[in-house]
Amino acid sequence: MPITKFDNNWIREDLDGIFRMGFKKVRTLYSKRSQFQRVEIVETAGHGRMLLLDGIVMLTERDAFIYHEMIAHVPLFVHPQAAKVLVIGGGDGGTAREVLKHRSVKRLVMVEIDPEVVAASREFLTGVNAALEDPRLEVVIGDGIRFAAETDERFDIVIIDSSDPVGPGVGLFVRTFYESIARTLNPKGILITQAESPFYDPDTQLSMLTHQRPLFERLHLYLYTTLSYPGGLYAFGFASQGLCPLADFNLQRLGASGIVTRYYNSDIHRAAFMLPVFMTHRLESLLDPVTFDR
Amino acid sequence: MPITKFDNNWIREDLDGIFRMGFKKVRTLYSKRSQFQRVEIVETAGHGRMLLLDGIVMLTERDAFIYHEMIAHVPLFVHPQAAKVLVIGGGDGGTAREVLKHRSVKRLVMVEIDPEVVAASREFLTGVNAALEDPRLEVVIGDGIRFAAETDERFDIVIIDSSDPVGPGVGLFVRTFYESIARTLNPKGILITQAESPFYDPDTQLSMLTHQRPLFERLHLYLYTTLSYPGGLYAFGFASQGLCPLADFNLQRLGASGIVTRYYNSDIHRAAFMLPVFMTHRLESLLDPVTFDR
Repeated sequence: MPITKFDNNWIREDLDGIFRMGFKKVRTLYSKRSQFQRVEIVETAGHGRMLLLDGIVMLTERDAFIYHEMIAHVPLFVHPQAAKVLVIGGGDGGTAREVLKHRSVKRLVMVEIDPEVVAASREFLTGVNAALEDPRLEVVIGDGIRFAAETDERFDIVIIDSSDPVGPGVGLFVRTFYESIARTLNPKGILITQAESPFYDPDTQLSMLTHQRPLFERLHLYLYTTLSYPGGLYAFGFASQGLCPLADFNLQRLGASGIVTRYYNSDIHRAAFMLPVFMTHRLESLLDPVTFDR
Repeated sequence: MPITKFDNNWIREDLDGIFRMGFKKVRTLYSKRSQFQRVEIVETAGHGRMLLLDGIVMLTERDAFIYHEMIAHVPLFVHPQAAKVLVIGGGDGGTAREVLKHRSVKRLVMVEIDPEVVAASREFLTGVNAALEDPRLEVVIGDGIRFAAETDERFDIVIIDSSDPVGPGVGLFVRTFYESIARTLNPKGILITQAESPFYDPDTQLSMLTHQRPLFERLHLYLYTTLSYPGGLYAFGFASQGLCPLADFNLQRLGASGIVTRYYNSDIHRAAFMLPVFMTHRLESLLDPVTFDR
């Protein structure tokens, strides 16, 4: 049997023992065990700098713009006038950067549990973290679950920019958390959630939607693509007390905003809500219908 | 430095030394060196059976339905009455299976260069190869480039179901081949081409579209997702002498056809043609515009 040296120069991520991804590493720029997890920033050969938490790829500079644009601009171009936004997680600053491109936003609260994620991103992810110094941003270092349960503030948009439902992320996928979040939303509020892979995490999507269904008038999933997570096709959840991601989306606003994007546009906005048959069959009792035809 | 045994139980695919994918292997079912390439069928732990050519993943039973539905149904639901279809490549039979779901199709010619691909798929990929016995199908074992240059037959739809532009696939991405294909198309004909990854193969897309631009009135790319290829987001080319993939798409025909799909539906048909900013910026001088708004 051939024997070879273990290759330390690859970042490897294993999915349930059936699939693996590897990214060629140039060098490690930052590695620290925080109170919650190991936080690493790595320079890769083909994907720019990469943020890892407990060895799991969170983002790469090459494709993170897709995730951040899609999590932020979809609700912000549906809500008629979002002034107050809450981000739970998102310590890398990329979601905050996209949210703060909207002039309507007067206040953004970002509740990140791990100060090491913010510190590492501030130092090493310069393309991602641009918004961390914006005066409209308040960074709260703390538990987003507790924040949502205790705050008296009300928000127009809440974005759950979370990692997977393991480790510190597990409480962000349970019913009591969504109940707290529903309470923090203004009447026309929108909740966006990181909703994992339709291929590899169908049970997470089913459970998330089942928990949210009694709490919101409208539920949708919308799709984006990623180089960083296994499977390539991923979803965000869109929950609201009435605003429709298509009927209430104003085609003219993006152009008028002057906001520059690299992935998101008004066609992608609408296309993202169109789900393949294998998803609609599984989830149609939980999702509200959408159609292109206006 | 840690030493570990090389793990033979993973199918590993390397992308330009920057990215790797691995699929857990249960056992090899078929492995034969043909005149053109090594043909393998492998049982995987999480993705069903897998077809590999020269060690490159061509399809898995878990996700091939997406590729085959998108390559076939998009042109077949745009063309008003496609009776004659030519598939170049496609020896696994999956594209033929989807094409032959259309009752309008009276004759399908599939030109596959490698008889071992057909033989292996016939024996081991029972879910994929269902159409190989359909009397409307003629399988030609031969060179698709030569077939296109020499045939007097004219087709309503030509589908290039090719592997990457390496090995036997290289001649399927050059201008003289597209000239031959354009000649084999009826006046309302449609050409569909496997158009690689917007992330990892932008030069292939640019070159393909540059070659096709003088030959066709309309050029589009449309997107689908895959678990089998690096990057997850892939494109097909749609070229025609006038038929528009959106304006000439009849929303009612899919429902009326009785065709059962697992990915493709009329929303996905239209969503697939909506391209992200980083693609339209790069390719807009070569592509015709599309819009949802009918």
